[in-house]
Amino acid sequence: MQRGIDLNADLGESFGAWRLGDDAAMFALVSSANVACGFHAGDPRAMRASADRAVRHGVALGAHPGYRDLAGFGRRALDVAADELAAEVLYQVGALEAIARAAGTHVRYVKAHGALYHRLAADAAAAASVIDALTAGASGLVVLGPPSGELERAAAAGGIRYAREAFIDRGYLADGRLVPRDHPDALVHDAGRAADRALELVETGGIAAVDGTRVDLRPDSLCLHGDTPGAVDLARAVRAALDRAGHDVRSFA
Amino acid sequence: MQRGIDLNADLGESFGAWRLGDDAAMFALVSSANVACGFHAGDPRAMRASADRAVRHGVALGAHPGYRDLAGFGRRALDVAADELAAEVLYQVGALEAIARAAGTHVRYVKAHGALYHRLAADAAAAASVIDALTAGASGLVVLGPPSGELERAAAAGGIRYAREAFIDRGYLADGRLVPRDHPDALVHDAGRAADRALELVETGGIAAVDGTRVDLRPDSLCLHGDTPGAVDLARAVRAALDRAGHDVRSFA
Amino acid sequence: MQRGIDLNADLGESFGAWRLGDDAAMFALVSSANVACGFHAGDPRAMRASADRAVRHGVALGAHPGYRDLAGFGRRALDVAADELAAEVLYQVGALEAIARAAGTHVRYVKAHGALYHRLAADAAAAASVIDALTAGASGLVVLGPPSGELERAAAAGGIRYAREAFIDRGYLADGRLVPRDHPDALVHDAGRAADRALELVETGGIAAVDGTRVDLRPDSLCLHGDTPGAVDLARAVRAALDRAGHDVRSFA
Amino acid sequence: MQRGIDLNADLGESFGAWRLGDDAAMFALVSSANVACGFHAGDPRAMRASADRAVRHGVALGAHPGYRDLAGFGRRALDVAADELAAEVLYQVGALEAIARAAGTHVRYVKAHGALYHRLAADAAAAASVIDALTAGASGLVVLGPPSGELERAAAAGGIRYAREAFIDRGYLADGRLVPRDHPDALVHDAGRAADRALELVETGGIAAVDGTRVDLRPDSLCLHGDTPGAVDLARAVRAALDRAGHDVRSFA
Repeated sequence: MQRGIDLNADLGESFGAWRLGDDAAMFALVSSANVACGFHAGDPRAMRASADRAVRHGVALGAHPGYRDLAGFGRRALDVAADELAAEVLYQVGALEAIARAAGTHVRYVKAHGALYHRLAADAAAAASVIDALTAGASGLVVLGPPSGELERAAAAGGIRYAREAFIDRGYLADGRLVPRDHPDALVHDAGRAADRALELVETGGIAAVDGTRVDLRPDSLCLHGDTPGAVDLARAVRAALDRAGHDVRSFA
Repeated sequence: MQRGIDLNADLGESFGAWRLGDDAAMFALVSSANVACGFHAGDPRAMRASADRAVRHGVALGAHPGYRDLAGFGRRALDVAADELAAEVLYQVGALEAIARAAGTHVRYVKAHGALYHRLAADAAAAASVIDALTAGASGLVVLGPPSGELERAAAAGGIRYAREAFIDRGYLADGRLVPRDHPDALVHDAGRAADRALELVETGGIAAVDGTRVDLRPDSLCLHGDTPGAVDLARAVRAALDRAGHDVRSFA
Repeated sequence: MQRGIDLNADLGESFGAWRLGDDAAMFALVSSANVACGFHAGDPRAMRASADRAVRHGVALGAHPGYRDLAGFGRRALDVAADELAAEVLYQVGALEAIARAAGTHVRYVKAHGALYHRLAADAAAAASVIDALTAGASGLVVLGPPSGELERAAAAGGIRYAREAFIDRGYLADGRLVPRDHPDALVHDAGRAADRALELVETGGIAAVDGTRVDLRPDSLCLHGDTPGAVDLARAVRAALDRAGHDVRSFA
Repeated sequence: MQRGIDLNADLGESFGAWRLGDDAAMFALVSSANVACGFHAGDPRAMRASADRAVRHGVALGAHPGYRDLAGFGRRALDVAADELAAEVLYQVGALEAIARAAGTHVRYVKAHGALYHRLAADAAAAASVIDALTAGASGLVVLGPPSGELERAAAAGGIRYAREAFIDRGYLADGRLVPRDHPDALVHDAGRAADRALELVETGGIAAVDGTRVDLRPDSLCLHGDTPGAVDLARAVRAALDRAGHDVRSFA
């Protein structure tokens, strides 16, 4: 049976003179683009370029807010107070929305970046604060995040639509968490295996954990990475496999 | 004859642990608040506090974008390309708009800050680029700026409403420019004299230049400063004089 | 019996257009100035002004490195890798040293700021990394910090001199830790009581904890705060009490 | 006749997660490395890596201070006051010096970056302020810059050694200035031609301008670029040609 599935990737991560990732290639492969909003990566000009690309490729534009930490690329835990976090997320979403409008589109969804992504999955107060802010300050946005956790709960409580993502290139533990990066099964590098996993996720709604247990994820979106060597090849293989199997790659938003 | 006139001031200029200006006092005196958007001053939490204050005091909320130069408070010329400038202005306006919505209001107007204010009055390409961006990325905004110059021309060409401001506490030259700051007549420190000038500007649409020549400014708004010693006293005197004379202090937006 | 004791305070915490604290008053009261180095507060011009003040007042100049977090004033935990932390501390110390030389003095000691201060007291790997860097990249520096913990241990292991500080205006628990800030006994606001505590610390080497237990601290330096209301008055009272009792207020370095 | 000549390049220009240039290749080809100091590019960890590379390759370590403008990579004119500029340069030089010491070397010279490079060649007050600061705050440093202009004059007046550089891959006008970048003869892309120009500069002390006029430059150093496509190939060709001709590639410092 053919299904619709979204492919998302973190894009627009250049900053000033520094380039990161192959956006030209990746925008042609995804249905959703998580665009950095200037706090951990990205700048207004890069955001405009990403919005233009989203329009050109018919890709849903997502805001990808992160901690205010350019030097750490938003990957480091930073103990921002919950109310400040909410204002910072809104700031970033609004900044991209204005730029998106100038490019003829809108921000469709929000996915947190890096350390903030992990915090919102685990910190109920922070998740509630961010969801409240999005409810009050934006409209019609979907929140994209991990298949369970505090952010999903807060979104449900706040009446905001939540989309679940699964990782094609990351191993899962039996409890649904990701295999830690220092473990040999943490990462899937092989493009063919990644494509098989994408099909498994789409067709069964779950994936085999590293111990063989079946993990139920029911993803609305599959996350691709765009900034590692071989990332584009892996993304191409996944996209081709989904197309070949007749699954409709399209935004959840 | 009684007239309506706007009073605007640069507010929300704190950043992190650093406080600047007496916002509590000034929000009660103005009808328009130019709120810093994080590039030269302000941060998301401060912006939220300013939006809340604007709602509480019935003050029109304005975005006050500046150069990306916290260390220089946006007062230093910075040679940003015109297309980047447009994206940066839109970024800042959009950021405040999302925060404003969460506080129950909207950004009503845009006034550039510091060195950017001066550049947009003089640089036709930069002014056109910014006006184009505002036309495409925002809606219903008024642009507030000096009584003539490239920004007013660009706004007219772009079909965006433009409001003119005059300075109560700055001396004018016969050609309408401000007296340079190193000149003894540059600044008006006396609150009573400032109040008289406010009345003159409102009632006659112009002011006497330092050489006695009459300068025609037809201001929609009078600019107060909030961050210098005595600023609040001066603002109080101006507001009281306008109220006493029966002029209606209200936003142009 | 009269003793020598150091008084230190965090100074030079202005940034760009933003002022913080009353440095003019505080430099006249302390014997050691912990000067912010641009990562959490301070900028090169402010650092030069602080170095000039240190020379003028015969005050020992200390580098006060913090996390790269202007928006959070270095008060928020930030998960910087230990090797990066070491390079960041060295960067800040070296920056101040060059400016100090131009002002005719040198950096005499290093005291970490805010969240970094607390981390180095508790994180052995980070403390060792920073001490290694200071040993290799600077010479003759003393490290100033809390009376026990990982930083003191790392300094001892690295052969770098360590000076202990005690807080005049913070309550202590029986185990030597500070009373948490949300507890009523956390802060001493009364200048007279602060002066008594300073004398007690100098003359007995310890202080009564909130439960009456005696805490042994053997401080080389007493820390004053310069950025809170009443801080200067409290500092004046402490300095006067020490002078009156004949204790010699002088740098440990 | 064989001569000694220096080859310098801007290196260490990565920042956080962003990589720029091929430092691994370039450090093996140059005799002097202009290392970014965190204001326009570079960060403490990258600076440490560059210092380690300089030691490993026997390359002279130079500080490459720029304007505080990460978003613009220091390429945009920024109207920093002369005294602030001096403190900012000293800050950056001192930061690298402390890191260099930890790596077992020292900063040997200073070359300004981007828009600051051009300003110091043209702005006598800024050049004097920077030279004064370097004289007072550092010792034994050489200043590297263009073959004439205000910085050379200020260095001579301040008694600080000045080294002149010439550009292998930039066309010259008859008056010694560079051909503007929008002109077809602005850039030399061909590696062989670049190598010939290097030999011409070393052996004759000058170069043919675009109109055929001979320009006398008497360079102490030839500048290579490391961050453009083909840059490494061009640098290899230049280095090989100089080696083959028996010229001794070594630091001027």
